[in-house]
Amino acid sequence: MEKLIITAAISGAEVMKEHNPAVPYTIEEIGREALSAYNAGASIIHLHARQDDGTPTQDEKRFAQCIAEIKRLCSDVIIQPSTGGAVGMSNDERLQPVNLKPEMATLSLGTVNFGGDDVFTNTETAIKAFIERFAQKDVKPEFEIFDKGMLDTAHRLIRQGLIQTPAHFNFVMGVNGGIGTSIRDFAYLVDSLPQNATFTVAGIGRAEFPLAALAIIQGGHVRVGFEDNVYLSRGVLAKSNGELVEKVVHIAKELGREIATPNEARQILKLEA
Amino acid sequence: MEKLIITAAISGAEVMKEHNPAVPYTIEEIGREALSAYNAGASIIHLHARQDDGTPTQDEKRFAQCIAEIKRLCSDVIIQPSTGGAVGMSNDERLQPVNLKPEMATLSLGTVNFGGDDVFTNTETAIKAFIERFAQKDVKPEFEIFDKGMLDTAHRLIRQGLIQTPAHFNFVMGVNGGIGTSIRDFAYLVDSLPQNATFTVAGIGRAEFPLAALAIIQGGHVRVGFEDNVYLSRGVLAKSNGELVEKVVHIAKELGREIATPNEARQILKLEA
Amino acid sequence: MEKLIITAAISGAEVMKEHNPAVPYTIEEIGREALSAYNAGASIIHLHARQDDGTPTQDEKRFAQCIAEIKRLCSDVIIQPSTGGAVGMSNDERLQPVNLKPEMATLSLGTVNFGGDDVFTNTETAIKAFIERFAQKDVKPEFEIFDKGMLDTAHRLIRQGLIQTPAHFNFVMGVNGGIGTSIRDFAYLVDSLPQNATFTVAGIGRAEFPLAALAIIQGGHVRVGFEDNVYLSRGVLAKSNGELVEKVVHIAKELGREIATPNEARQILKLEA
Amino acid sequence: MEKLIITAAISGAEVMKEHNPAVPYTIEEIGREALSAYNAGASIIHLHARQDDGTPTQDEKRFAQCIAEIKRLCSDVIIQPSTGGAVGMSNDERLQPVNLKPEMATLSLGTVNFGGDDVFTNTETAIKAFIERFAQKDVKPEFEIFDKGMLDTAHRLIRQGLIQTPAHFNFVMGVNGGIGTSIRDFAYLVDSLPQNATFTVAGIGRAEFPLAALAIIQGGHVRVGFEDNVYLSRGVLAKSNGELVEKVVHIAKELGREIATPNEARQILKLEA
Repeated sequence: MEKLIITAAISGAEVMKEHNPAVPYTIEEIGREALSAYNAGASIIHLHARQDDGTPTQDEKRFAQCIAEIKRLCSDVIIQPSTGGAVGMSNDERLQPVNLKPEMATLSLGTVNFGGDDVFTNTETAIKAFIERFAQKDVKPEFEIFDKGMLDTAHRLIRQGLIQTPAHFNFVMGVNGGIGTSIRDFAYLVDSLPQNATFTVAGIGRAEFPLAALAIIQGGHVRVGFEDNVYLSRGVLAKSNGELVEKVVHIAKELGREIATPNEARQILKLEA
Repeated sequence: MEKLIITAAISGAEVMKEHNPAVPYTIEEIGREALSAYNAGASIIHLHARQDDGTPTQDEKRFAQCIAEIKRLCSDVIIQPSTGGAVGMSNDERLQPVNLKPEMATLSLGTVNFGGDDVFTNTETAIKAFIERFAQKDVKPEFEIFDKGMLDTAHRLIRQGLIQTPAHFNFVMGVNGGIGTSIRDFAYLVDSLPQNATFTVAGIGRAEFPLAALAIIQGGHVRVGFEDNVYLSRGVLAKSNGELVEKVVHIAKELGREIATPNEARQILKLEA
Repeated sequence: MEKLIITAAISGAEVMKEHNPAVPYTIEEIGREALSAYNAGASIIHLHARQDDGTPTQDEKRFAQCIAEIKRLCSDVIIQPSTGGAVGMSNDERLQPVNLKPEMATLSLGTVNFGGDDVFTNTETAIKAFIERFAQKDVKPEFEIFDKGMLDTAHRLIRQGLIQTPAHFNFVMGVNGGIGTSIRDFAYLVDSLPQNATFTVAGIGRAEFPLAALAIIQGGHVRVGFEDNVYLSRGVLAKSNGELVEKVVHIAKELGREIATPNEARQILKLEA
Repeated sequence: MEKLIITAAISGAEVMKEHNPAVPYTIEEIGREALSAYNAGASIIHLHARQDDGTPTQDEKRFAQCIAEIKRLCSDVIIQPSTGGAVGMSNDERLQPVNLKPEMATLSLGTVNFGGDDVFTNTETAIKAFIERFAQKDVKPEFEIFDKGMLDTAHRLIRQGLIQTPAHFNFVMGVNGGIGTSIRDFAYLVDSLPQNATFTVAGIGRAEFPLAALAIIQGGHVRVGFEDNVYLSRGVLAKSNGELVEKVVHIAKELGREIATPNEARQILKLEA
């Protein structure tokens, strides 16, 4: 089985210091959290930029500053910006970090409720525009999957020649409106992957570590971090993203799976050096 | 096994006479198609109202006219208006036919892409508002499910006491953005149903009859009609909704399942007389 | 989708004239039933030999007589003897019809209860011996699968180089002791097949036609016949194997799947001419 | 989620000191291994008796001696003898330990290959005889499941009133001939359980800890021990059954599941005090 790639989703767009005081907003805090995750074993930093007051932003300059700070502290880590943005943003606004030509970035394959009034909208037209921009900038997409139908969309876009294979996916499981977090949900998504795909699992809330264990067993990869969950165990806030990564490393060790370095992750994901 | 309830989705909101000249727009055409379906064995008419030029409308008066015409022709059939509406409509606009207190109406449990720029949006807040209105008007909801996550939403709303059980669902399978149409997709949704639920399956396009067969075998119910599919077999347009219903009746007969009358359907769905 | 191969399991080893007077024992009856199935659309005759009083036999000479009679009546049909035999028979006894070098024969991939005191025993050692004999005689195996674990055995034997791919399987579903007959059982077995495998489904008893419909939809193939089921519909005995085949042809027609001739079946199964 | 019951299968019938020198044969060794498992967190000891040279035996007296020794060392542990026996043994021979009226004993629900010439035979007739004896002696069965079809048998016997509910099952996954050890195999068996059932998972060989993790996540229970696996991690022999139990305790801790004491296990399994 291949080594385990751990992605740290250190910041997110919605989690606030009110949820966990270690949530990073400033450039410096972003750097600190990335470093803690990297030192614990993360090979990919999944990055949302925030303004100093925590407001999410897709500003290209802010992303550039965050990336520079992370590279200064952990020079070989893979940096993966989000293109999620916020409600009402245009495609171009959301795609700003892709213009910086990071090695990877996320690209969501459909529209899903996030609870309340919140809808994370990615029309099929927008998806195709995002794919084109990623290709122009030579950025490897991590295709975000919130429900089974998004994998059906992936298959369709592969048949249409719009998605290149082997593709890499991220199952985000447990948002209010998306697929649940059961073992059968996990098995079902895995069985629905295109051939030769690689995948990572991000379990929301208390599903984070159980789903990490499943991914470790299955030969998939794991995403953890404040974006998805702020607790180390029930009622115990994690002091840093590093603590969450460390816990995954422990579970992987118990289950006999080794941890990938950033360069090993590049090989597994077929990123160019 | 219970008798088979056949729902005829005779009109839809998007299918046009260009797709099949028998698609009904006028009150008279709606009546004609409802009658053809009823005569062939449908016990429920799933109804979208259209203006005379085919434009979809949620207008209460138009719905009232359609319903009166259907009742004139097939007095005991169950009429089930759609609350899908069209992009940009408010909740109140979409809910107009519910004010007419039909026995049933559809209520979608989430947001899903419909391909291209089209998103069928139902936020969690809107869903809760719809559920409340249905309850006020004493209308039985048919909960539309386009992907697995919408069943997870159903479970959550049941736990919160917002959805009453036994609930009735409609799996709409095969829209561009929703869950696919494979046998395993079908089995997966069935296994994810709340306890004691009843369900109907609507397969889009060429999946209509295969999914009908699965529902017949499983003990579920079947929806067919121009809204979902306009072909009787590959390349052969159906002359009426009745022809599509008739084909389901044949398959049911081969597989040993009897057809429910409207009153038998009321008992199975626990509608009040 | 490929055309549908219908196998008629005309005689079996356990079903008796007491169950259905049309069950064939004599050479002449075997011929009559094979012809009825062939005329209705079967391209493969799955054959158990019986003595004139109905006792099952693996006698090579008796098989040769049955095969000659079938070929006389339907010269191009594919004949597929069973190697199931009866309790207490040696491998060599069971393998007698393979010595006649038929195009195909069945080969069961494990041991399973058949209810009561009855166990259908095929040790892993015996399985390997059967595979070797089939290879020596250039006979294509149809690997019989009674439960999920037998597919795991198939994968293991493929990895060991003992089973050649693409392999062909028969899911026998619904014996007392084997896997059930639900849609999810079917989907699960299909998802567990080795790559590029072809498969046929034999549903026992009243599961025969529902499972036939599933196989038709999935792109698999269908086995019916007195061995598995003697009823055309609830309480109505089939007058011949041909009637059972005819019903499958009707279902296939409703679902838009064409029927393979024997020569088309040979191409699909990669049998040598 | 209920607390986790850990069963230690300390001895088995086939594993030998050649595989791991800590495998217990003598009464004293059986006691030593039971104690190590108990101290580490096991609440149930699954027991096969062996002669001093390691030969498996169902001898009632030998079982009585083993049970006395275990009770001397860990007075409150639940002792669960096996009724597996060995090839050629009669039902009565196999059932000897049940005559001792232990709180529980295992009862296999079907026949399965064990690789090579080895078949573990339990005809349906034998299963019914075992169930009857268990009831006479007031012994709670742990129904062993080696493949999906055995759960179908369980459902049938429940419908026939022969198995009492809530029933308790043990999924033995990964024997050569039974169901595999994948996450989807696990999810499939769980989804196939009768209502209100409890279950334990025993993963064979290197599947032991991954399957333990799945059971911990799912709310099931875990069996480990030399019978199923002699390695603590790849290439590292466990020094005792206790080491294997300890590893499960660690994984459970990482995943937030507490460990049941023997009395808590009795409550969960509805054993009488």
